[in-house]
Amino acid sequence: MSFKTDIEIAREASKRPIQEIGAKLGIDAADLLPYGHDKAKLSQRFIDSVQDRPDGKLILVTAINPTPAGEGKTTTTVGLGDGLNAIGKKAAICIREASLGPCFGMKGGAAGGGYAQVVPMEEMNLHFTGDFHAITSAHNLLSAMIDNHIYWGNALGIDTRRIVWRRVMDMNDRALRQITASLGGVANGFPTEAGFDITVASEVMACLCLARSLKDLQKRLGDIIVAYTRDRAPIHARDIKADGAMTVLLKDAMQPNLVQTLENNPAFVHGGPFANIAHGCNSVIATTTALKLADYVVTEAGFGADLGAEKFMNIKCRKAGIAPSCVVLVATVRAMKMNGGVAKADLGAENVEAVGKGCANLGRHIENVKSFGVPVVVAINHFHGDTEAEIAAVDEFVRGQGSEAILCRHWAEGGKGTEALARRVAEIADHDDANFAPLYPDEMGLFEKMETIAKRIYRADAVIADKKIRDQLHAWEAQGYGNLPVCMAKTQYSFSTDPALRGAPTGHSVPVREVRLSAGAGFVVAICGEIMTMPGLPRSPAAEAIRLNEAGQIEGLF
Amino acid sequence: MSFKTDIEIAREASKRPIQEIGAKLGIDAADLLPYGHDKAKLSQRFIDSVQDRPDGKLILVTAINPTPAGEGKTTTTVGLGDGLNAIGKKAAICIREASLGPCFGMKGGAAGGGYAQVVPMEEMNLHFTGDFHAITSAHNLLSAMIDNHIYWGNALGIDTRRIVWRRVMDMNDRALRQITASLGGVANGFPTEAGFDITVASEVMACLCLARSLKDLQKRLGDIIVAYTRDRAPIHARDIKADGAMTVLLKDAMQPNLVQTLENNPAFVHGGPFANIAHGCNSVIATTTALKLADYVVTEAGFGADLGAEKFMNIKCRKAGIAPSCVVLVATVRAMKMNGGVAKADLGAENVEAVGKGCANLGRHIENVKSFGVPVVVAINHFHGDTEAEIAAVDEFVRGQGSEAILCRHWAEGGKGTEALARRVAEIADHDDANFAPLYPDEMGLFEKMETIAKRIYRADAVIADKKIRDQLHAWEAQGYGNLPVCMAKTQYSFSTDPALRGAPTGHSVPVREVRLSAGAGFVVAICGEIMTMPGLPRSPAAEAIRLNEAGQIEGLF
Repeated sequence: MSFKTDIEIAREASKRPIQEIGAKLGIDAADLLPYGHDKAKLSQRFIDSVQDRPDGKLILVTAINPTPAGEGKTTTTVGLGDGLNAIGKKAAICIREASLGPCFGMKGGAAGGGYAQVVPMEEMNLHFTGDFHAITSAHNLLSAMIDNHIYWGNALGIDTRRIVWRRVMDMNDRALRQITASLGGVANGFPTEAGFDITVASEVMACLCLARSLKDLQKRLGDIIVAYTRDRAPIHARDIKADGAMTVLLKDAMQPNLVQTLENNPAFVHGGPFANIAHGCNSVIATTTALKLADYVVTEAGFGADLGAEKFMNIKCRKAGIAPSCVVLVATVRAMKMNGGVAKADLGAENVEAVGKGCANLGRHIENVKSFGVPVVVAINHFHGDTEAEIAAVDEFVRGQGSEAILCRHWAEGGKGTEALARRVAEIADHDDANFAPLYPDEMGLFEKMETIAKRIYRADAVIADKKIRDQLHAWEAQGYGNLPVCMAKTQYSFSTDPALRGAPTGHSVPVREVRLSAGAGFVVAICGEIMTMPGLPRSPAAEAIRLNEAGQIEGLF
Repeated sequence: MSFKTDIEIAREASKRPIQEIGAKLGIDAADLLPYGHDKAKLSQRFIDSVQDRPDGKLILVTAINPTPAGEGKTTTTVGLGDGLNAIGKKAAICIREASLGPCFGMKGGAAGGGYAQVVPMEEMNLHFTGDFHAITSAHNLLSAMIDNHIYWGNALGIDTRRIVWRRVMDMNDRALRQITASLGGVANGFPTEAGFDITVASEVMACLCLARSLKDLQKRLGDIIVAYTRDRAPIHARDIKADGAMTVLLKDAMQPNLVQTLENNPAFVHGGPFANIAHGCNSVIATTTALKLADYVVTEAGFGADLGAEKFMNIKCRKAGIAPSCVVLVATVRAMKMNGGVAKADLGAENVEAVGKGCANLGRHIENVKSFGVPVVVAINHFHGDTEAEIAAVDEFVRGQGSEAILCRHWAEGGKGTEALARRVAEIADHDDANFAPLYPDEMGLFEKMETIAKRIYRADAVIADKKIRDQLHAWEAQGYGNLPVCMAKTQYSFSTDPALRGAPTGHSVPVREVRLSAGAGFVVAICGEIMTMPGLPRSPAAEAIRLNEAGQIEGLF
């Protein structure tokens, strides 16, 4: 048996002109700013014009802790969107944009897979509509203006040892992680330690993804803390007078991008904040606009539900004033097996016992999602080779939890393969059973918020943090930042901070190594373990094989 | 008397949908890849399909040495294009794209001025169609792959002291001119000296602007020399296996951008190499494609004719196999006065004597252009305040040189103001009087090429260079690079290397401080004096005032 590759399937897609896709959502061609014939941004005027409409139903797709077996969260998001359309519902999907840099490291980065993909795939993995380049420019303009302010006299009294604003590049470049800048003499400024993160780690990205309008965006950008004075007073981007120009640079990037699935259904692909030091969801403006245009909006959150769904609920929904009607939790038989202790090489063999054992991970995510007051359905993303007994084991486990699991074959069959899931999800959403509430109130102390997440979601016994860190949190509370939500940066591979600990661990503790204030985005980041914000390229980077073939098509990117 | 600002005029423009502009050149809507409703790229298929058509006439707009008075070279290029269309000719213009970084430093950067502008002006000065971002990405991918190669074992034996490939950013950021990278320990690589140039200074930019096809582009990118081994053997981008992925990143950037003038005539805005360390012209692919679509193509070259026209003839035309039918040399009464010794503050007062004296600069440029075998017409770009006697003085001087000068009022009147110029230029071009030849043959030695330019164009007595530099040139000749043209990097403000020396100096010498091999672009750069490849921001950067107004329009950019 042989399968077509994702790229082969994508190339065979019968894409429709983007104006036709827009028309499905009632968007006039004049309100679509085309980028080629298959991509478009929504005009600001149109976005403004739909604000008074009622909202559709929001469906969040999340997953168990990721394993090397692959869960197919984006694939399921796309498949469910197609499935809803296939059963006659007016549905749109909302996913994140891909980062360019990592595409040249490891192969991959496609939006979905098999017959559940978003196209044009190549462009979405390269420059797309330029949003990330705009974010890079806005971020680095601020960096240049900070150093320029110091160069011309430092009227604000910035302590050059306390500049907390780095630079960004959408590239995997380990050489830029830590640098000494402004070398070479008087004309080049005062030598300082500096460094680059990858663009998706920029606070500008998080600001753009949480902003409700350009005005709100400018306020958030202005609120960013870039440095401190010698007496520890914060210096904001607004003090550097960078917020206006940054907003101008982000004017187009703020507008959601419309593309299509292989089945010609509308997909908004917009924003892409890191899922560790940021909240890992697509933009608020895309999600809220989609909710005005479609009856059902299917979106996803980064990593597993312990990080992605938690942040979606506690950060994105809280900030945007939205609430999910239903959560779809993606699991695979293969991932259950790995959670049950099977090595990747042995996944081919049936192992019902391991599946059952690995379901503990799934079970905890089900409980966690329910604790937000939202109904949950498990989507078993079918892989070739899954046996009936293995699937039945998952199904039985989920039923034992008082939930339900539905087998999906969207990878092989597209929307047709998720019709059962789509029907059930629509039914739940229409029934309005959800009673969503975030996990903690704004008023709770910052450290207590971390404890709440660690205990209730990760099931840890305790959060460990130095006095220095607790003092810092108290200082921020005193400065008026105590009402912010917290953004946990921990490994995605485990409920714990040990990536090797699969399943449903208990008895662990969560050490908070460092805390950072993202005053523009509006959250406090708790760093639990090593978090890499500038990746490196592997020994044989994918870039070495990426090229145009004789037909002008891109090879090696996927 | 009050004038409208450029931005006010641009905002009042009645832009036509870009498909209508394309239709004027016989481009089908399907062959235009739109970026919004007012910008588009030409499809590769379309570019390929027109290759067998005959060429239109090529007209180069160049100028005297720039002065703070402003000459209006781009404005005249746009005005002449509109003038040719106004008299019923099928004409297109080809100009360079603006660099984003400098827009946040000094005000300005618009494409033309008054009623001779290209629109959409804001977007052309910001991200436009993303070409420069693509160049930045391709350049920095190569940088990352070089360091990554060393990190993983350095199989090619790169001498880390002899890496000649820097990084780029489209930002004025003096802090990045000279840095130490890869600090912080083993995982971040081997500490090295490094630095950033502004994107327009990238050799990738020069490669893209000289490439005739994507295939040619990939070859040029592969030819780039990025480093040397300990025994001085060159390491190419091809050896790092970066050329394929870089070409993929530049796939769309390689396609010319179509926009329109205020009078709805077609304008190709594509590419923007530095005019000092590179050749300073718009892309070969845009110019050669435009020549297949229009009967007259008006283009321009950077800086004054001593640099811009010389490089246009000796580098761009030579490489692209094209030849200008006519050269338009832009001069202003104000600039003649400054060349005649008048200070900027005193330009308001009539001074016929200074005009006559300053014409020496103009006269030499006329002679120089003629030495390429191409007819020349002087365009006097009219400024409010020029007196009849002053204009007559220029006219008389030019006639004394056996040439002709035509007064143009395109800034105030648009294409109507250049109809006389347009008629004369079309007549000359149609007459096929040009007998174009570059100044020197490929076979001439590299140093002799520099001497030829210095003596025949700059009228210097000698070129001065250390033995080390001459040895380097001989080494490159021995390696097979002797047939390349040379690219002079010298001040644009004077025929000499002293920016303060206006008029038509003689008796000076040209010191070559450094030579660089741009093996991908295909030229040897001779650096004569201080050349800045990464600008800094001024004390009060324009960025501080750039913002969106209540109507969502951009303020402060111009």
